[in-house]
Order: sequence, then structure tokens, then C-alpha cells
Amino acid sequence: MSLRKTRKKAKLASLLYADTLTSPDQLYFGRFFVPDPFVSFLIDKKKVGVFNALEFSRARKESAFEVGLPLEEWTERAHIHFGRENIGIAEVIYVIARSYKIKVFRIPFDFPTGVAFKLIEHGLKLEVIDGMFFPEREIKTEEEARFIKQGNRCSALGFKVTEELLNKAEIKRERLYYEGKPLTSERVQEEIEIACLRSGAISADTIVAGGDQACDPHCRGSGPLFANQLIIVDIFPRVTNTGYHGDMTRTFLKGKASDAQTKLVRTVRAAQKIALKTIKAGVSGQTVHSQVVEYFNTQCYQTRRDEGGAVGFFHGTGHGLGLAVHEAPRISVKGGRLRKGAVVTVEPGLYYPGLGGCRIEDVVQVTSEGVRMLSHYPYRWQIT
Amino acid sequence: MSLRKTRKKAKLASLLYADTLTSPDQLYFGRFFVPDPFVSFLIDKKKVGVFNALEFSRARKESAFEVGLPLEEWTERAHIHFGRENIGIAEVIYVIARSYKIKVFRIPFDFPTGVAFKLIEHGLKLEVIDGMFFPEREIKTEEEARFIKQGNRCSALGFKVTEELLNKAEIKRERLYYEGKPLTSERVQEEIEIACLRSGAISADTIVAGGDQACDPHCRGSGPLFANQLIIVDIFPRVTNTGYHGDMTRTFLKGKASDAQTKLVRTVRAAQKIALKTIKAGVSGQTVHSQVVEYFNTQCYQTRRDEGGAVGFFHGTGHGLGLAVHEAPRISVKGGRLRKGAVVTVEPGLYYPGLGGCRIEDVVQVTSEGVRMLSHYPYRWQIT
Repeated sequence: MSLRKTRKKAKLASLLYADTLTSPDQLYFGRFFVPDPFVSFLIDKKKVGVFNALEFSRARKESAFEVGLPLEEWTERAHIHFGRENIGIAEVIYVIARSYKIKVFRIPFDFPTGVAFKLIEHGLKLEVIDGMFFPEREIKTEEEARFIKQGNRCSALGFKVTEELLNKAEIKRERLYYEGKPLTSERVQEEIEIACLRSGAISADTIVAGGDQACDPHCRGSGPLFANQLIIVDIFPRVTNTGYHGDMTRTFLKGKASDAQTKLVRTVRAAQKIALKTIKAGVSGQTVHSQVVEYFNTQCYQTRRDEGGAVGFFHGTGHGLGLAVHEAPRISVKGGRLRKGAVVTVEPGLYYPGLGGCRIEDVVQVTSEGVRMLSHYPYRWQIT
Repeated sequence: MSLRKTRKKAKLASLLYADTLTSPDQLYFGRFFVPDPFVSFLIDKKKVGVFNALEFSRARKESAFEVGLPLEEWTERAHIHFGRENIGIAEVIYVIARSYKIKVFRIPFDFPTGVAFKLIEHGLKLEVIDGMFFPEREIKTEEEARFIKQGNRCSALGFKVTEELLNKAEIKRERLYYEGKPLTSERVQEEIEIACLRSGAISADTIVAGGDQACDPHCRGSGPLFANQLIIVDIFPRVTNTGYHGDMTRTFLKGKASDAQTKLVRTVRAAQKIALKTIKAGVSGQTVHSQVVEYFNTQCYQTRRDEGGAVGFFHGTGHGLGLAVHEAPRISVKGGRLRKGAVVTVEPGLYYPGLGGCRIEDVVQVTSEGVRMLSHYPYRWQIT
């Protein structure tokens, strides 16, 4: 990063105002972690960042920004330009835009409205980009695929820990006990999250949900785990060094499975295989999803919605994965054409209160011929 | 939560479209965790949420929403109203607004511009709120203060772990060794984060930075730790069950401190005491910050900025703490009047490459008389 300022006659620039934790675009663009929102823009293919004293020298050392502007200096210029004390970030952006002769900013869908409205007041034009702000973010490089695999290896470690706990658990009156105490969702989550931490990833909101709890696919699960019930374990860790995620799900059962549970698990796995066979570059996400929906229908697993919520298969078959856990493309009723190099989850599931839920999730990269697996873990699920 | 819909002649409603991880407002409003953005609004003092099948029944059981609208049904209505297939969330919000006779929405500063622009196209009026969207979020209830204390207890556990590691560490040629291996920032971070996990909190981006690394206050720290160097440890965990944070910093040194290091640490602690004595309801954050700045000046600790970045004291004295790590009010050059019940950090620091950095941070609740400490941990810093 240099302090040199490029001032061409360009009129259009891509603008971000976000921190890197909540904005994958900002992290993708700047390639370094900043906890508070900051301004960045792309002009003449140059990456420019505006940093306060707190971030300035770190930005210089660690980031992908080619030009760094000191926030304090530009705030001072905004004070002078607007002739008042109360200067916000929009006024700072305005004086920078003026200096760079920028008239129009491309902004992402999630750009803060508070800033946008003020920029318009100051006479700037804004062009909101629907969908991916950096379309190339959807296509993963070899390095990015490796980062995602690393995330999935952390998920896999979590399954290993889960299996060990379930293996050692004893069954007393249908309940699971470990080291003399009831084995709870929380305990399993804790051990998974520690395993992830030891491998350099943070797994937040890890799902370990048994029985009917698992029928709410976003319920994290809590309290004692029971024998002979399906337990959904969904682990989507963020690797600390890179910001990329893994995302895998396995379903386990400690004890003895009923025929209905066995059929449920086999059907979900068969549906996953169908999806994996269907995915390749050029096929639409919608087509893949329909295949799964149809397969469940032919196997007589109905999806319906009533007062208590939905049962059956009522989420998408998959979603893009990268710096965000959920990103483009989708494999759902809204899914468009899958592009070569995209990385997606494949995660059909079935949920019936009384019987329980099952979801199996892997991650693949879309290729011209089909898929390349970026996640690996066995599909064994019964633990006696 | 009931399915009953309230349709009064109200014309103004507060509107959010966000997930609860990145939007503390959404979490504050709905009091349950949702990983993907969803619509919520406040009308006639009723909290209304719009949920897809995935979240619907969980919202009913766990959330603060009094009315739940099924997203799929309202998307269908939007399809019919707009007579086209391609319906986004703005169109769904529009048909809901129509049904509730809402003409104007209050929206937060960080409301997504993509949605805002479309709502305006559809003829709705938007009023952007600068600052806290729910002003009452700034004032913490007894329960919230308890939640923040819980977060700080996790931070304190992290310091305990750090001290244990530094106590056991051996010094060989100025480097620290633990269990025969070099003791690194990463190792200490890992042990802190595990201690937090075991207590039900996630500590991301934990700072353990020694020597000159600590002079970048947002540098996490990496690589081997050295004897006789100041090590800044800043832990801001999020308690998983509540979403509230702790935020504390201590500075340690293993080995023997120089006179300059000792003076630096004592001066920072003295500055913190001055700030703690100055804070009370009605005093401005700016005043508190100025006292700290002046004190450092009288002690001949200069703040200046050069090509390599800034040295001295170049961040705020403190910030509000709650569902966000950084929230209103500020204790800095921009800080306004501190209100009774606000919870803030008090964290002066000094940073001089060559000498090292020191920051000491605690959390207090503002009272009419002064402050109530919400964080507790000794200030011992030299470990021999």
C-alpha cells in the first residue's frame, strides 16, 4: 500500500462502507480484518481504503489496499468544505469523491441507507448492485477451494468428537450419560467448538439437535440427548486466518434405529446422491432442487405446512459457501444456472415431529463434468 | 406469538430487515437468533415478524414477536399484486405495508439501500434514524447489566488462563517457552478462547499482542512471545445464550520490567482511575476523554502521527457495550452526555514502538453518583 493518491478523470467507482466481520465483500476486497466500518473504493482498478490512526499502519502491512487515505485528514477537509463541526462519513466520502472526480458510485445491496441518502443529498449518483457485488466472488480460485476444504476439515473433526462422545455414552432409561452425567446438546456443542478452536476455526451456533428439536432446522438444540433418536449435527466453522467457512451436517443415532428412522436416513442420503449427480456447470440450481423434491415425493415423504409449522422438506437443497456461510448461488426454487468453479453445499433434509429430522450436508465445487468434493466424512450414523 | 393480524389505521412503523448476528437492533427487538435476514416491524406497540417455514415455529416458541406473518404467504400476495414472478423482499414489505395501511417507515442507518430504494419506488416514505434506532438500547436494565457482567467474567477467566501460562512459562534467551515449545500469541489466544467456550461464550479475534505488535491496537498478535516485553491481552467475548458481550483488557509482562515500562503501565492505570472518577450521569464523554488526554500530556506522553502510523494515545477512552462490542455512547472527542444506566468501557492506552503498548480496560455502568463496576480482575501485571 502506498500513500500516493491516484487522481484520474474517472467518474465511476465501486464503494463500500462496512467492517469485515459483517461484510464478506469488504473482506474479499481488502483481505484484512477490520472490526469497525470503514470506507473503501475501487477506481481505475486500484483499491483505495480510508483508515483511521488505529488501522492505518496495519492496513499498510497486511491488506490488499494499494492506496491508503488517512481518515483524520479527510475528515478535516470535510470540516473545511462543509464549514461545520458535525461531519459524518458521508461528508468524508463526498470530499474524497470530489478530489477523485467521482460522480457515480456502484454500491452493494446492503450499503447503509443512512450514508446513501446523504450522498444523494450531496449530489452524487448511486447505482445499487443486486446480487453479488463482486461477481467473481461466486467463482472460487484453487486457493479459496483449499480454504473451504480447511473449514470442512474442522467440521469433520467435530463429527469425530461427536461420535466419540456417543460411543462412550451409556444409555439409562432412554437417556444418554457421559462420565456419569446426562449428555446434553450443550456438552456436545462445547466439545465440537473446542475441537474447531484447536484447529484454528470458530464454530458459532453449532447445531446438535435431537428428536423433535431437530425438526426446526435452525434450532441449535438444548438439554439432554436421548437414545434411539435422530440427532442432527450441523457444523459451519469460520477459519480464523482466512475468514472462509466449512459447512457440513451429519445425522447420528445412539441405540437402535426403528425401520422408519432407517428409511428416513437412507432416503435423505439417496436424495443427496441424486443432487450430487445432477450438479454440473450450466445446470440450474432450480433443476437440482426439483430433482430432490420429486424424489422425496416418489418416496412418499410429503411436505406440508400447518399451524405448528412445516414438515417434510422445506428448505433449499444448497447454497453458495465462502466468506459467508450463505451466499450465491442458490440450489432452491430460486436457483439460477450453476457456474463452473462455484462452491455449494448439498444438504437435503426431512423433518417430521414424532419421527425426528435428518439432514446430510456436503460441499462441492461445480465443474464442467460434475462436482469435486470439498468435504469428507463417513456417512455411518448408527452408534450402538 | 399469535397468528392474529392487527390492522389498524396506523401510518408509521419502525422497520428492520436484518439477521440477528450482524444487527444488534434485530436481536434486541426480536430476542431470538436468526442467521438470515428477515423483516420485522413495530406498529401500534406490537412486534411483528415475517418468517419463512424454516424459522416460523421457532419464532413462535422463542421470540419476543407478538405477531408472526408467514413469508411464503406474503410472497404469494406480492406475486399477485405485482403480476410477475421475480419478487424481492421490498415487494413483500410493500404488500404488508399496504395491508397494515403503513405509509412511512422509520428505518435504521444501516438498513440495506437495495431495499430502501425499491420501497421508495413503490411509493413508501422512509425516515432514516441517525444514532441508536431504539434509543432505549443505550440504557441497560438490571438484567442486561447482569448479562454484560457474565461476559466480563469470561474475559476475566481468559486473564486467569493467560497468567497461568505466563507463570509456568520458562525464559530462554529472552523467549518464552511452555511445555518445551515456544509460547506464541496463538497458543495463548487458543487457551483463552477455550476457557470462554467452557463458560458459554465465544471469544473471536482475541488480542494477545506483545512488543511492537501491541502498538497496533487492533493487531491480534502472532508468533513467539518474548520476556521483558509488554503483552496486551484484550478479550471481548459474546455470551452465546444472550448475545451480550464482555470487553476487558489487561497488560502483562513476563520477566523484568524496565523503568520506562513500569512508568507506562502506571500512567495508563492512573489515567483509567481519572476517567472512572470523572464519569457520571450528565458528564459528557468528550470531557472524560479530554481529562485522559490532558493527563497523558502532563506526564509527557505525546501523541503524534507520522508516516509509520500514530504513537501515543490515538483511540477513544471508551465506548458503549452490549449486544454490539462497539455501540453508543462514545467516550471520545465525539462523545455526548452520558446517560444514567449506560454501560461503557474505560480503556486508556499508550503505544510507543520500541517501548511497547499498554491498555487497561474495564466496564462500568453510569450512575447518578458515578460508576458501578461491571468487570473485576486484579491489575497485577509483572510475572516473574
